[in-house]
Amino acid sequence: MIKMNTHYADLKESYLFYNISQKIRAYLDENPGKRLYRLGIGDVSLPLCNAVIKALHQAVEEQAHKETFHGYMPECGAPFLREIIAKHYASKGVALDSDEVFVSYGASDELGDIIDLFDSSSTALVIEPAYPAYVDANTMAGRKIVHLASGEENGFLPNPDESIKADLLYICSPNNPTGAVFSREKLQAWVDFANRHGSVILFDAAYEDYIEDEDLPRSIFELDGARTCAIEICSLSKTAGFTGTRLGYTVIPKDLNRDGMNLNSMWVRNRTTKTNGVSYILQKGGTAVFTPEGQRQIRQNINVYKNNAKVLMEALDKLGIWYCGGKNASYIWLKCPGGLGSWEFFDYLLNEIQVVGTPGEGFGACGKGYFRFSTFGSPEDTKEAARRLCELLG
Amino acid sequence: MIKMNTHYADLKESYLFYNISQKIRAYLDENPGKRLYRLGIGDVSLPLCNAVIKALHQAVEEQAHKETFHGYMPECGAPFLREIIAKHYASKGVALDSDEVFVSYGASDELGDIIDLFDSSSTALVIEPAYPAYVDANTMAGRKIVHLASGEENGFLPNPDESIKADLLYICSPNNPTGAVFSREKLQAWVDFANRHGSVILFDAAYEDYIEDEDLPRSIFELDGARTCAIEICSLSKTAGFTGTRLGYTVIPKDLNRDGMNLNSMWVRNRTTKTNGVSYILQKGGTAVFTPEGQRQIRQNINVYKNNAKVLMEALDKLGIWYCGGKNASYIWLKCPGGLGSWEFFDYLLNEIQVVGTPGEGFGACGKGYFRFSTFGSPEDTKEAARRLCELLG
Repeated sequence: MIKMNTHYADLKESYLFYNISQKIRAYLDENPGKRLYRLGIGDVSLPLCNAVIKALHQAVEEQAHKETFHGYMPECGAPFLREIIAKHYASKGVALDSDEVFVSYGASDELGDIIDLFDSSSTALVIEPAYPAYVDANTMAGRKIVHLASGEENGFLPNPDESIKADLLYICSPNNPTGAVFSREKLQAWVDFANRHGSVILFDAAYEDYIEDEDLPRSIFELDGARTCAIEICSLSKTAGFTGTRLGYTVIPKDLNRDGMNLNSMWVRNRTTKTNGVSYILQKGGTAVFTPEGQRQIRQNINVYKNNAKVLMEALDKLGIWYCGGKNASYIWLKCPGGLGSWEFFDYLLNEIQVVGTPGEGFGACGKGYFRFSTFGSPEDTKEAARRLCELLG
Repeated sequence: MIKMNTHYADLKESYLFYNISQKIRAYLDENPGKRLYRLGIGDVSLPLCNAVIKALHQAVEEQAHKETFHGYMPECGAPFLREIIAKHYASKGVALDSDEVFVSYGASDELGDIIDLFDSSSTALVIEPAYPAYVDANTMAGRKIVHLASGEENGFLPNPDESIKADLLYICSPNNPTGAVFSREKLQAWVDFANRHGSVILFDAAYEDYIEDEDLPRSIFELDGARTCAIEICSLSKTAGFTGTRLGYTVIPKDLNRDGMNLNSMWVRNRTTKTNGVSYILQKGGTAVFTPEGQRQIRQNINVYKNNAKVLMEALDKLGIWYCGGKNASYIWLKCPGGLGSWEFFDYLLNEIQVVGTPGEGFGACGKGYFRFSTFGSPEDTKEAARRLCELLG
């Protein structure tokens, strides 16, 4: 009899979004026709920009004709896309070889796949509150998880400390769900820690394009020593609205060696064995994001979301509610007022003002009593939600 | 210091396609401007059919407008695609629930991912000659490989025998590289073996649409007992020319249980953790394949490749060269004439008549002395290659 991967049985069922949808359904059943103001899920609401649409149509059309048809793509990514991404990094002051850039179907897909490089005996550090898949993907691989709680006392940006024994360090900045962003100094401490201990940082940079402050690092490779300890995982989902279109990229520096092995070479071997490359059509669409025209257009969309953040922050400021995120991030993480629990606050907002957010405890125990607003909703809904919040809690 | 997955060091470097490209480069350097007739790599040459192109354009256009924009897709596949695929199976006499169908980015991606369901102590049986990724993906996971050689004596379609100790059974039919197709009776023997021993069959059905003979099974689920022992992995790459566009699907029956776990549920958990779903655009394009119009159009393309096969088979028949495949498959597997080795024959064809094929020993030791022709090239090149073969070897 075959042995299954029994680590799947160690997974805790995640009821967060399921519970939310059940509660919404029950509410709408009792209150048919009520309009909801959804600031819950982190999915974008604006369509793809023109430059991307044009490139996608063009790529589809190429696939219609023998002369321009593309078959199998290189497994690690099309050179045209790897090169334009390397140039994009160069424009931000980070020098990369194009073969340090790998094209993926998005950050969540890549985060699931890349841990295959590490032995199952290695331990994974997850700074909580956190995106639940970090824990689940490693649990499936039989890896021990080290949970590091963060809180208001450190602005949800904890420092490494020498008591931490972990090999794989997950750092998400700007953070999902808290919206907190590591400063150069704080992130440098983690880079130094990783180099000192021979750990590897998985830097989830899916929200980097929301950073406004010029002194905050957008890429971990802006920091000294990151090339010998970090992998950066990026996505066009939030940058360019690709949540349903799918495309991302990952940087693995050639200087990253551990345990006698080179991680860039290992990933080449992984991709050439386990994939047949990313869709030509999507790679062409993704390339348009990095053109001057594409950058201008995606910036317009990002600014719409940033304005949503501003509207919500103004409301919270007015109400005197503690929060972090929002300014350089697409999430706002707030303390539930009046000592309410996360789910109590959820129910209160849903029932009283039909505003939907996400209870913080879905992201780890230290998220209890906190609440997440997404800024990816429509401006109209966000404004109305803010107005209702002020009316209810003012 | 983090421990890496040191099983990567157990991988043998695969020089097959690299060596081929080096030899071609050297030949063209010495013979500039010579035209080659490429029957080597298994990549399609015909563009996507109109129904697919229309659906892709339409999906791209939907992503351009707020009212029709699609964000995150369900991780296991869009219901519209899962349902049309289940209906397609029904039309072939196989009843499936739509949630037994999972959408993927293609067979090679899925074959790489799905073995995560099994413990690394499970052993994998690979019937050789074989697609090299079966061995490599399992080697990376630290799995022991059981090699089962096949040959002319069994038409490259070996029977299971009770001495085989293996948990995960790879069966590819129609086969890459041999083009051999399991009969109902022979495949039933493997299904019975798997049920008897508690093994799981990974049935690679990427070439099923090339089967002409009505009595040959196109899906393993046409056989009794397959629902309790098999996973079927399918692709639109060869069926509908998606090699560079990417889309596939996998069937995991709800009746498939092993080691106290249900494999369908496990895969749901895997996908919801490790992916954010397959691109909406590609899923819409894939859906068009299963419409009556799409089926008619892809059949026209398949017939072009089938005619290539006929042209090559006629040449080999005339030359009295032993081969299998071709009729119900997109590859032709031949015995190198005059006792030549695979690489000798490769050099001979390249130097004398500029025809490029693939040396059989690249697919395992028992492929020595054999050679693979792909039928996915252009009809013109295939005809000229056949003419040259007859002239050279006649």
